[in-house]
Amino acid sequence: MEKIIVINGPNLNLLGTREPDVYGSTTLASIEQRLQIVGEDLRCKLAFFQSNHEGAIIDRLHEAREHEDGILINPGAFTHYSIAIRDAIKAVALPAIEIHLSNIHAREAFRAHSVIAPVCLGQVCGLGVIGYELGLQALVRHLRNEKE
Amino acid sequence: MEKIIVINGPNLNLLGTREPDVYGSTTLASIEQRLQIVGEDLRCKLAFFQSNHEGAIIDRLHEAREHEDGILINPGAFTHYSIAIRDAIKAVALPAIEIHLSNIHAREAFRAHSVIAPVCLGQVCGLGVIGYELGLQALVRHLRNEKE
Amino acid sequence: MEKIIVINGPNLNLLGTREPDVYGSTTLASIEQRLQIVGEDLRCKLAFFQSNHEGAIIDRLHEAREHEDGILINPGAFTHYSIAIRDAIKAVALPAIEIHLSNIHAREAFRAHSVIAPVCLGQVCGLGVIGYELGLQALVRHLRNEKE
Amino acid sequence: MEKIIVINGPNLNLLGTREPDVYGSTTLASIEQRLQIVGEDLRCKLAFFQSNHEGAIIDRLHEAREHEDGILINPGAFTHYSIAIRDAIKAVALPAIEIHLSNIHAREAFRAHSVIAPVCLGQVCGLGVIGYELGLQALVRHLRNEKE
Amino acid sequence: MEKIIVINGPNLNLLGTREPDVYGSTTLASIEQRLQIVGEDLRCKLAFFQSNHEGAIIDRLHEAREHEDGILINPGAFTHYSIAIRDAIKAVALPAIEIHLSNIHAREAFRAHSVIAPVCLGQVCGLGVIGYELGLQALVRHLRNEKE
Amino acid sequence: MEKIIVINGPNLNLLGTREPDVYGSTTLASIEQRLQIVGEDLRCKLAFFQSNHEGAIIDRLHEAREHEDGILINPGAFTHYSIAIRDAIKAVALPAIEIHLSNIHAREAFRAHSVIAPVCLGQVCGLGVIGYELGLQALVRHLRNEKE
Amino acid sequence: MEKIIVINGPNLNLLGTREPDVYGSTTLASIEQRLQIVGEDLRCKLAFFQSNHEGAIIDRLHEAREHEDGILINPGAFTHYSIAIRDAIKAVALPAIEIHLSNIHAREAFRAHSVIAPVCLGQVCGLGVIGYELGLQALVRHLRNEKE
Amino acid sequence: MEKIIVINGPNLNLLGTREPDVYGSTTLASIEQRLQIVGEDLRCKLAFFQSNHEGAIIDRLHEAREHEDGILINPGAFTHYSIAIRDAIKAVALPAIEIHLSNIHAREAFRAHSVIAPVCLGQVCGLGVIGYELGLQALVRHLRNEKE
Amino acid sequence: MEKIIVINGPNLNLLGTREPDVYGSTTLASIEQRLQIVGEDLRCKLAFFQSNHEGAIIDRLHEAREHEDGILINPGAFTHYSIAIRDAIKAVALPAIEIHLSNIHAREAFRAHSVIAPVCLGQVCGLGVIGYELGLQALVRHLRNEKE
Amino acid sequence: MEKIIVINGPNLNLLGTREPDVYGSTTLASIEQRLQIVGEDLRCKLAFFQSNHEGAIIDRLHEAREHEDGILINPGAFTHYSIAIRDAIKAVALPAIEIHLSNIHAREAFRAHSVIAPVCLGQVCGLGVIGYELGLQALVRHLRNEKE
Amino acid sequence: MEKIIVINGPNLNLLGTREPDVYGSTTLASIEQRLQIVGEDLRCKLAFFQSNHEGAIIDRLHEAREHEDGILINPGAFTHYSIAIRDAIKAVALPAIEIHLSNIHAREAFRAHSVIAPVCLGQVCGLGVIGYELGLQALVRHLRNEKE
Amino acid sequence: MEKIIVINGPNLNLLGTREPDVYGSTTLASIEQRLQIVGEDLRCKLAFFQSNHEGAIIDRLHEAREHEDGILINPGAFTHYSIAIRDAIKAVALPAIEIHLSNIHAREAFRAHSVIAPVCLGQVCGLGVIGYELGLQALVRHLRNEKE
Repeated sequence: MEKIIVINGPNLNLLGTREPDVYGSTTLASIEQRLQIVGEDLRCKLAFFQSNHEGAIIDRLHEAREHEDGILINPGAFTHYSIAIRDAIKAVALPAIEIHLSNIHAREAFRAHSVIAPVCLGQVCGLGVIGYELGLQALVRHLRNEKE
Repeated sequence: MEKIIVINGPNLNLLGTREPDVYGSTTLASIEQRLQIVGEDLRCKLAFFQSNHEGAIIDRLHEAREHEDGILINPGAFTHYSIAIRDAIKAVALPAIEIHLSNIHAREAFRAHSVIAPVCLGQVCGLGVIGYELGLQALVRHLRNEKE
Repeated sequence: MEKIIVINGPNLNLLGTREPDVYGSTTLASIEQRLQIVGEDLRCKLAFFQSNHEGAIIDRLHEAREHEDGILINPGAFTHYSIAIRDAIKAVALPAIEIHLSNIHAREAFRAHSVIAPVCLGQVCGLGVIGYELGLQALVRHLRNEKE
Repeated sequence: MEKIIVINGPNLNLLGTREPDVYGSTTLASIEQRLQIVGEDLRCKLAFFQSNHEGAIIDRLHEAREHEDGILINPGAFTHYSIAIRDAIKAVALPAIEIHLSNIHAREAFRAHSVIAPVCLGQVCGLGVIGYELGLQALVRHLRNEKE
Repeated sequence: MEKIIVINGPNLNLLGTREPDVYGSTTLASIEQRLQIVGEDLRCKLAFFQSNHEGAIIDRLHEAREHEDGILINPGAFTHYSIAIRDAIKAVALPAIEIHLSNIHAREAFRAHSVIAPVCLGQVCGLGVIGYELGLQALVRHLRNEKE
Repeated sequence: MEKIIVINGPNLNLLGTREPDVYGSTTLASIEQRLQIVGEDLRCKLAFFQSNHEGAIIDRLHEAREHEDGILINPGAFTHYSIAIRDAIKAVALPAIEIHLSNIHAREAFRAHSVIAPVCLGQVCGLGVIGYELGLQALVRHLRNEKE
Repeated sequence: MEKIIVINGPNLNLLGTREPDVYGSTTLASIEQRLQIVGEDLRCKLAFFQSNHEGAIIDRLHEAREHEDGILINPGAFTHYSIAIRDAIKAVALPAIEIHLSNIHAREAFRAHSVIAPVCLGQVCGLGVIGYELGLQALVRHLRNEKE
Repeated sequence: MEKIIVINGPNLNLLGTREPDVYGSTTLASIEQRLQIVGEDLRCKLAFFQSNHEGAIIDRLHEAREHEDGILINPGAFTHYSIAIRDAIKAVALPAIEIHLSNIHAREAFRAHSVIAPVCLGQVCGLGVIGYELGLQALVRHLRNEKE
Repeated sequence: MEKIIVINGPNLNLLGTREPDVYGSTTLASIEQRLQIVGEDLRCKLAFFQSNHEGAIIDRLHEAREHEDGILINPGAFTHYSIAIRDAIKAVALPAIEIHLSNIHAREAFRAHSVIAPVCLGQVCGLGVIGYELGLQALVRHLRNEKE
Repeated sequence: MEKIIVINGPNLNLLGTREPDVYGSTTLASIEQRLQIVGEDLRCKLAFFQSNHEGAIIDRLHEAREHEDGILINPGAFTHYSIAIRDAIKAVALPAIEIHLSNIHAREAFRAHSVIAPVCLGQVCGLGVIGYELGLQALVRHLRNEKE
Repeated sequence: MEKIIVINGPNLNLLGTREPDVYGSTTLASIEQRLQIVGEDLRCKLAFFQSNHEGAIIDRLHEAREHEDGILINPGAFTHYSIAIRDAIKAVALPAIEIHLSNIHAREAFRAHSVIAPVCLGQVCGLGVIGYELGLQALVRHLRNEKE
Repeated sequence: MEKIIVINGPNLNLLGTREPDVYGSTTLASIEQRLQIVGEDLRCKLAFFQSNHEGAIIDRLHEAREHEDGILINPGAFTHYSIAIRDAIKAVALPAIEIHLSNIHAREAFRAHSVIAPVCLGQVCGLGVIGYELGLQALVRHLRNEKE
């Protein structure tokens, strides 16, 4: 049974209240609940982590080396400058998928560039909450492929 | 029953033989077969189109205005310069999702920039063939949300 | 009696339905009809061509070398990257005027730059359908000046 | 009867003598005479203003708020840096068309960029004196459309 | 009675000792005391927060959603790269004013650019400690205007 | 009793009528009246000057060398390109504060850059009419500090 | 006996008539004749293809996978933006040499950059018709080296 | 006897008092006196003009077409952005030499670029008042060469 | 006896396991042990600190003002964007040397630029663990020079 | 009988030993021998020169003005910055062809740009030793064309 | 009696024969003769040096530290990249004036930038041979000023 | 016993006299003496070479292929543009360490970029003469590691 850590970066704890026209009206808790259900369907085990602290996210990524098999991460604003998180993902050497609720290509120019994407398997953006579910599916299928 | 057009751009007809380390060894025909099955599961109707001609893709997008409800598109190399395809997607005003087999953020710098993504709902990249399946799911769910 | 080819590039066949707030609600057919009437007033003969295919536009420009005296062209999205069309206009060595329905300077930054304008006599933008009529007048007057 | 102010920027008082290979051999006075005749045909009333002083052009634009219905402006070299004139046109909130005698896209690179065009209806360039006449036609037709 | 949170970013705890030629010799404590007095004059209630941790500042901004009516923030070096703080200010949707002790336009080039200013009401820089007092006045007047 | 010259640049004479959503509905006259009152409170003497002419502003700055002790300046559009005004402020060697009614960081990209700010004490932007009052306070306090 | 496909891109069908000062006065037909003779000398078999359509060139490159051993290509204006042709050459994995009649380094700045050259063996430019002959020699020698 | 107009741009009227470490302590009046003497030695007739108004400088340049044979110009800050003055010098078609008191290459980066130099014979910078005298010598010698 | 704080930034706690081809196989603990021995040889006292939290590093730097005489810092990924750490080093005004295990000039382009190096004495990169030892030697010698 | 100088720039004396995967295993001596034979076939006379000194190459180019009819040059690393060699080739006004053994478009970005190519007839790159032979053929044919 | 070294960089030995439309038809020898005469008039002693070798120029500059009082240098193409010559001039700490025969601002864009000018007193360009004479005058007057 | 060549680039022969505030007051001779002693301690054999000639440095690097085991190089100003020296170091395939006396990150922007560092093991800068000693230590330890 694969273990997946789902990491959400800064300000995502405000989901549902923050700029709902951009980010939708679902709360982070309900996203995590839905993922929990999807995870059970896929027979994998999820852990959840949200922080507004870059360092805490890095610490949690390091822990994943011992406790999880894959990473689903929405780095929020850190997407655009946290080379430290990029290096952490590369260092722990687990497969990771980057998720964005909004279409980062249809907003301010600086949001189109991710410093983290190059060390992930791939990126899903603009599909709202569904993006997390799809990312989870892809990650689990990727992990199972590796084992078979 | 939603109708979806699945469009593949230049060189994707060579899938399975072209640079398998980058694009995998699955052929386009088998991707389309797998999507067909997923489509049936989702109870939507798929049409498939591949062309190496930018103009033919634009023509097909125009047709979609009358015959389909949504667009799944892997624009291949056109991703990076075909403003004409971007304008066509905007003009037909159907929801579209952009798919890339490889992680365009982990290759040559010019591949990270999409001129087409800003007019799509979102983008899925780096997840291989699964990316198409996930994109299809997301598109159908988006369409059903709109109707309910 | 001067012969003029009026060329419209990609997506202009959708005029009247595509983003009417940007491009207006007149169809391409009615633009061509109005130009036909203006052409008759000016005692010049018009031919019309629209294509979403860059190559087809180049082929038609080449034909113009033998059949027409001047070119009125709205290159649509090709304005911004088709060096091949630029070279074709330069190669056929006929006077050309570039037309844009919308004000390309008041939209996305990339639309302000034309790779084609440097090989034309001039450019008219932002004046809607009237822009074609004015461009036609200017072209005919330019051609007659040359002969007198 | 619409009132139009025709504004010409720096060095345009030298027209006819200045670099005739670029700007032609017609003087500003004769351009204004020709425009006067076109204006009479169109049944609109023209006023003319030329200055080498950015501030004087701004003052005149401000006056236009009370005395004219539209603006035809060839900002000359101010095209490329006078954000103050841009702001003046936006502030008076009258429809304006930007005219250039020469094809600004076929000269030094810095001439292709207009800071003023984004606040105008449109731009006409490279058509010589005819450009003014066409701009006038377009402006009057735009104004009449607004009223009908 | 309006509640205002006054946030100071990294290294501002060293004020009075750090590069006094750039930042002056007043300590943060005495700035806060002076602001306290000004706040009392303005009949508003101030809370103070300083941290060298980006995440802690984001957490405190989130709290402000429930406890304060406005934000006075000197983001220190985070001004130039913390898109996460920018997003936090936008997310909590409270009026904010950005303060800088030094004139950020008269120092290294990278200091002239603020990623945070676009989501604030405005910015005050180069006026030393007075800048905070003025920012506070402006913020309170802005809040009262909104209510009247 | 300190003497302050308050300079307003191009198009600010239109305040109250020009783009009220950006610049508010207060006229320049009423801003000057309010400043007059604030000035009396602060026991300093104000002179006012507005011009759309860069040269006139430079001339007035030069006069200030003999007649005033400080400068409050809203350079309007000249903010972004008038190196001549920058040099004038530096040349007269009086303390100056730059004011902007709107938040120049939340508008077109070119408005975020001031060529004048580096030679001023500081800059206040986005605080509307209050910005002038605060700038005046800061300037007077700066001048009195220098003398004591 | 090696088989070589000689591909010429947009506007090269006009050779001999188009801008003879840049491209010389030889027609494409006579270039192909001369290459035919050189090919016979080298005992290799040539096929020729010219198109103004990017898609047609890609289709023809794909065919080459089955029918030819090497590619001689003058991509014309596509040199500067057709990432799709670049990908096609990489995908078919045949040795290719890029030819330009004119010295692309001595013309407009944008002509010095080739998006296609990085996937070719090499590039020959500025040597006129001789360039094709030399490219053919080099290609054949490269192919024979591979076999020996 | 050659007639030369010596034009000084914005803030140069303050010479001798303005930033003497950069511009020296000589006043403009004494520079003009010294030039007068040099002019007499060279048997040419000098006229002097200084203005802080770009438009006034353009007007004076236009007058020079009829009254002078050459131009010595220190455009001050206009050096870096006044394309209008550049165009005026080109339009009057008189030989011009650009003078700068300070070494514009050893100051702020933006001062190294002159938009005016490309239309002058040459440029002298960093040689203080001597630069004017040398520029005058060079101009007179250039003019006499032309006549002989 | 000089006191030196040795600071290691994000992900350096993973040394020995993280990308050993880039960073070597020595753990941070063994680096610190080796430095401890070198420190004893040099008769200076070392303290060690590692954190993945930018704020914690800033806090520790602030403490150094009171407890240490010099700083040896490998800022890890913070090298490239943490202006806050840069400001902290400048603020505490202790001599600092920046260390990188790998050659930052031979990796991704963005790694060649350090925002921190300008406020350090110098930088040592690419020499692996030895780099720390050499940096320590240099720092101690620098400190002793200052005292003598 | 045409005389040709074959110039090789810095580090090309190490050919055969230096990075054989990039530059092949042939020595410069054997390249020169092969060229000698080709030269005899073409009935032209070759001289050879290699230097690691930019100045020596310029001196030799100057000599060529008197002793040779054409130049075959592989400038090595000087390709990318030696404007002095560029000027030398332009100054001696002999036809020159630039040769590169490797495909400079498929290596580090800075290698794709040649400051020398714009003053040559053309450039051959990526064809290994054959490139020299082809360049020689092209040069001789160019020279003979000139004479006939 | 001041001693001046006159240094000419690469390709200037060809003066009189090289591109006479750009550089004139005077030889370097005759320039040196004319300078010799001017030098005698000014009662200073000239030495002359020309080299195509950057290193030789640096060596000669170093010698100047002991043998000359000032430097007149036309660095030719080295102007645009030889930071080594820049450093040499700065290192010898003698006053230097940079001379260019042609107007470097009216040629290729890369010629407008001098890496050497920032360490010179000033620069004279575009005045042909007269430029040397004027530069010499300025240098001598500068030196005498220093002594008086 | 390892043999090391210590190479110093342009202007370093002036050390001790040249800008002592930047480069210190030690002469190159005394640096070499100190290194000699360190070398003896380390039981390695040093050779020294200084030149202001890029070509001479390249020649000496080539010699090192046969005579030395490692390279210590301070390329001086060549650091920033000599791709030829970069290629030479790569070609001889000996381990090299780049040394700078001053902190190149705290000076003019262009000094922060090294074209040579990417082909070295690492870089030491800003540590003055000690930098050479440390670099030597590191190089010897690197060489011994390779052998063991």
